[in-house]
Amino acid sequence: MKESIKVFAPATVANVVCGFDVLGFAVNEPGDEVMMRLTDKHGITISKITGDDGRLPLDPKKNTVSVSVQHYLQSIDRADIGLDIELHKKMPIGSGLGSSSASTVAGLFAIKTLLGDERDPSALLPFAMKGEEMACGHGHADNVAPALLGGFVLIRSYEPLDVVRLPHPPGLWCAIVFPDVDVPTREARQIIRNKILMKDAVTQWGNIAGLVSGLFMQDIDLIGRSMQDVLVEPVRSMLIPDFYEMRKMAMDVGAVSFGISGSGPSVFAFTRDEETAKRITSKLQAHLTSIKIGSNGYVSTINDKGPRVLG
Amino acid sequence: MKESIKVFAPATVANVVCGFDVLGFAVNEPGDEVMMRLTDKHGITISKITGDDGRLPLDPKKNTVSVSVQHYLQSIDRADIGLDIELHKKMPIGSGLGSSSASTVAGLFAIKTLLGDERDPSALLPFAMKGEEMACGHGHADNVAPALLGGFVLIRSYEPLDVVRLPHPPGLWCAIVFPDVDVPTREARQIIRNKILMKDAVTQWGNIAGLVSGLFMQDIDLIGRSMQDVLVEPVRSMLIPDFYEMRKMAMDVGAVSFGISGSGPSVFAFTRDEETAKRITSKLQAHLTSIKIGSNGYVSTINDKGPRVLG
Repeated sequence: MKESIKVFAPATVANVVCGFDVLGFAVNEPGDEVMMRLTDKHGITISKITGDDGRLPLDPKKNTVSVSVQHYLQSIDRADIGLDIELHKKMPIGSGLGSSSASTVAGLFAIKTLLGDERDPSALLPFAMKGEEMACGHGHADNVAPALLGGFVLIRSYEPLDVVRLPHPPGLWCAIVFPDVDVPTREARQIIRNKILMKDAVTQWGNIAGLVSGLFMQDIDLIGRSMQDVLVEPVRSMLIPDFYEMRKMAMDVGAVSFGISGSGPSVFAFTRDEETAKRITSKLQAHLTSIKIGSNGYVSTINDKGPRVLG
Repeated sequence: MKESIKVFAPATVANVVCGFDVLGFAVNEPGDEVMMRLTDKHGITISKITGDDGRLPLDPKKNTVSVSVQHYLQSIDRADIGLDIELHKKMPIGSGLGSSSASTVAGLFAIKTLLGDERDPSALLPFAMKGEEMACGHGHADNVAPALLGGFVLIRSYEPLDVVRLPHPPGLWCAIVFPDVDVPTREARQIIRNKILMKDAVTQWGNIAGLVSGLFMQDIDLIGRSMQDVLVEPVRSMLIPDFYEMRKMAMDVGAVSFGISGSGPSVFAFTRDEETAKRITSKLQAHLTSIKIGSNGYVSTINDKGPRVLG
């Protein structure tokens, strides 16, 4: 049995514009890394967290990674085990890129691999959702499921949990820009209306049906036409600096679609090639600089494998 | 050039439970027939309608078939032509099975074929929608599009019109029962709430995304799990005698799913084989007889071709 392991898990884009709370996909960059080591002591310790500017708790009872790993260990009657965790954040916290999900999934995949548990990674989903519940107050799966399974994932239902992995066109690229402003997930959720118009809901489910069809048909045009959100984006975009200006810039450069990643403030665009994705991140980041907002930019293909062992 | 033609067009099931206003599919039975003949006179006449109990207008300005054919002829500058139409209704009117759409599509396909217009049948869609506008007060496409194109059809958007043909598992059967009670389309539409809860809408679009995925994946279990409607069915089912009793009967016999066809009162069930579909129609029709309601029952595979020339 291995004594220690290093695991990467990917950032994720939840909602995918027209699939609020039910769709998400994983990217190859950014992502978080967890280093995990079996120890002689009893219980879990977190010896180090980097890249978080001191914002995440080292207390294993309060950190989503250790909490979800603890739930997993209890489920297999191994809560007696000794573990030390190092968490290396490689993406901003509170960015709308599934930062806590990436850490949690990396931790769960690390312990699963260390213990030689050969079940399908989807067996980890309930434990990852426990981590999400702690991080965001909701046991949502639209970040953890794609982080764990890779690719595009539909959460058709929560009770019972029904998760469907969707295909995608091979040549799809993703440009992501995180404008460094504060949009807490809880508040981004609170501003969404509880009641909506039936006619807007019909528009939305026509679009998600179109998006899912486009993913199966490898029809990037249909994917682009379908990625419209008449319900959530009009509200959440207010929390993102110059959202509609950024959209226009991205579409003018040749984006297939543009929208908010999760609850924001990160935005993302699909493109047909790396070059266009790079042009979009540079253009948007230059614009954010011009209005005195810092940013991170990422260009990536879709991550199809979920977490992976680095060493 | 042929002088006369006889065309069949299929009945259709709109909504498909979780796809209110955006999904529909065609069946091979029932369907309507149109006999069309070129004449020496100017303009369109309707010489005969059978199977309608005298409910449909012979006035070509008021009949959806002639009105949509007229729109088509104007679009190709042939409004001068002389035509006689016979319409043979082979399914009940006001049944929620796209009765007017079947007639309209049969008429349009007849004239297109008579005139040797070799465009794709989808070119007829705008004219068929004109007929629907007259029949139901709404230019909906969730019956005419599947009647015209066959198979499952998604209307992703109306403006601009964006229609996507979806695949389906080969072994899918459909049982349809029409309870002979009156549910006018207009009123069935009026009782639907204008405002709904966001959380119900999220459930609904998780389900339509699941249904579309199931159709592409040929996963009949996923199709069945996804066909739940928390928004429209709870209201419209009140207009259908013993709806929930009929559902239970169908599911007990082995239906994959059960729901309202269009705005009702017809109900339908998907099954994995003809035998189960037959058992469902007999059981439901026997129940309706026991509560003194007449009915029609149909068992069919999915119609994949849309209209066809009979002679």
